[in-house]
Amino acid sequence: MNLNENYIKLIDEKLRGYTSGITQPLLREAMEYSLFAGGKRIRPLLLIAAADGKIEEALPFACALECIHTYSLIHDDLPALDNDDLRRGVLTSHKKFGEATAILAGDGLLNLAAEIMSGHCSDFLERRNVSAMKEIMLAAGVNGMISGQMDDIFNDFEQNEEAIISMYERKTGRLIIAAVVSGAILSARENVEEIRLAAKKLGEAFQIKDDILDVTSDAAVLGKNVKSDEKNGKNTYVAAFGLEAANERFLKLSEEAVDGFSRIYGEDAYLTKISKNMTNRRV
Amino acid sequence: MNLNENYIKLIDEKLRGYTSGITQPLLREAMEYSLFAGGKRIRPLLLIAAADGKIEEALPFACALECIHTYSLIHDDLPALDNDDLRRGVLTSHKKFGEATAILAGDGLLNLAAEIMSGHCSDFLERRNVSAMKEIMLAAGVNGMISGQMDDIFNDFEQNEEAIISMYERKTGRLIIAAVVSGAILSARENVEEIRLAAKKLGEAFQIKDDILDVTSDAAVLGKNVKSDEKNGKNTYVAAFGLEAANERFLKLSEEAVDGFSRIYGEDAYLTKISKNMTNRRV
Repeated sequence: MNLNENYIKLIDEKLRGYTSGITQPLLREAMEYSLFAGGKRIRPLLLIAAADGKIEEALPFACALECIHTYSLIHDDLPALDNDDLRRGVLTSHKKFGEATAILAGDGLLNLAAEIMSGHCSDFLERRNVSAMKEIMLAAGVNGMISGQMDDIFNDFEQNEEAIISMYERKTGRLIIAAVVSGAILSARENVEEIRLAAKKLGEAFQIKDDILDVTSDAAVLGKNVKSDEKNGKNTYVAAFGLEAANERFLKLSEEAVDGFSRIYGEDAYLTKISKNMTNRRV
Repeated sequence: MNLNENYIKLIDEKLRGYTSGITQPLLREAMEYSLFAGGKRIRPLLLIAAADGKIEEALPFACALECIHTYSLIHDDLPALDNDDLRRGVLTSHKKFGEATAILAGDGLLNLAAEIMSGHCSDFLERRNVSAMKEIMLAAGVNGMISGQMDDIFNDFEQNEEAIISMYERKTGRLIIAAVVSGAILSARENVEEIRLAAKKLGEAFQIKDDILDVTSDAAVLGKNVKSDEKNGKNTYVAAFGLEAANERFLKLSEEAVDGFSRIYGEDAYLTKISKNMTNRRV
């Protein structure tokens, strides 16, 4: 069992511990359905990696982050938003449980993230814990992920590179940045702002790769409908500047990100390796 | 200007301070539309009252609570849930802005609550602050308000008094309890569990009154569609046990709640007065 698998097992056990306490059966079922639908656990793994593998300190925040990511997928898939039927190879929440349950399961996951973190901060009243929670809630928040999602739905950026990159950063980047930065905070790293910069590049590279895969991959491999961005007239880097320019920017950013982590954490550090894997992904 | 109006002014100013920093224009507009649609600010006022009027300490939590309450209304009103067109005399969020924006404005308000509280806890790292945040997030959470909302939508309790009361407590009661208890925590009150008990009675009385008003009031006074519970086949105390039994239970609980606060905070305390007003409301 490699390090990834070991951590994923711990993340899943901890998540299951949180959801097993939910007494409303349908709410619990819907929340667990999406939480355990085969997500790659990229954000929690990044958090643990950036926390130098200090698993006890990192795990509650890693789980909270995965709850937030999962809620955002459930709500994004809703008919009023992206209207997707498939996610990670299975039916989306509203297709499986209906819209009302999907909306509330999403709300439940966002709230659960705050419950986990505020509970942990209450159990261990330490500055680094509260700082990590603040970092994560701001990233998920009204000038973070939710703002990016609004722009993605309502704005047509066309060839405005700056606006697309800003939308990317808020919609996807901020949560990836928060994973790395809150991990760094939890393990009391000193050069947090330098770490943030590398994480920012990783986040953008990750989103560009996502758009590239949407164009070049097929549904069986990707586990969701492909060309959905094109179909939905989405603002993507690929749509605006073509596949070649997207690939170039992706390569540049992912190299810079990996170099950054390599410099700070070391070439063989788990964070450096996981970043390499992330940017090499084919699904 | 009486105490209520003065506090409401402070709450509104503080809320406006939080939302004015939202850079995505439509998100900000939709969040402010619902936040400033003439809500009675009952929960934040209760929190401030239970905090003995310690306004500086109470205000961030009071605002967070109002954000959570407002998000719950936006999502509850959605077509997939209660499908209401009117709220506080004006169009509901999805009628005004469309479903996608309503969903994200709701998400934004829930997240903003956690942003406000974790930011405040980070600025003032004190046990009482983190405890108040935890109390509020748990009340709003998967075994609190969201759980009650699920039960309200999917379960048919018919004549099961215990189940209806449990649903009431989670759906409405928990946030009212959290208002009072977190206020008490913030002002370092000692008898928190006794206060919680009185708040629990107040919360149930408040919800029964809501159901009674739904049957006996008219839309012009109430500012939302009346008989919507009946129309939606909702589980209400009134529907299950009739108006008379509901009135009796309401009177008993509201008296006990006011007595409880009177005993702990004093007869002339703001919390006692506000509880009296709450249970005497006609809208």
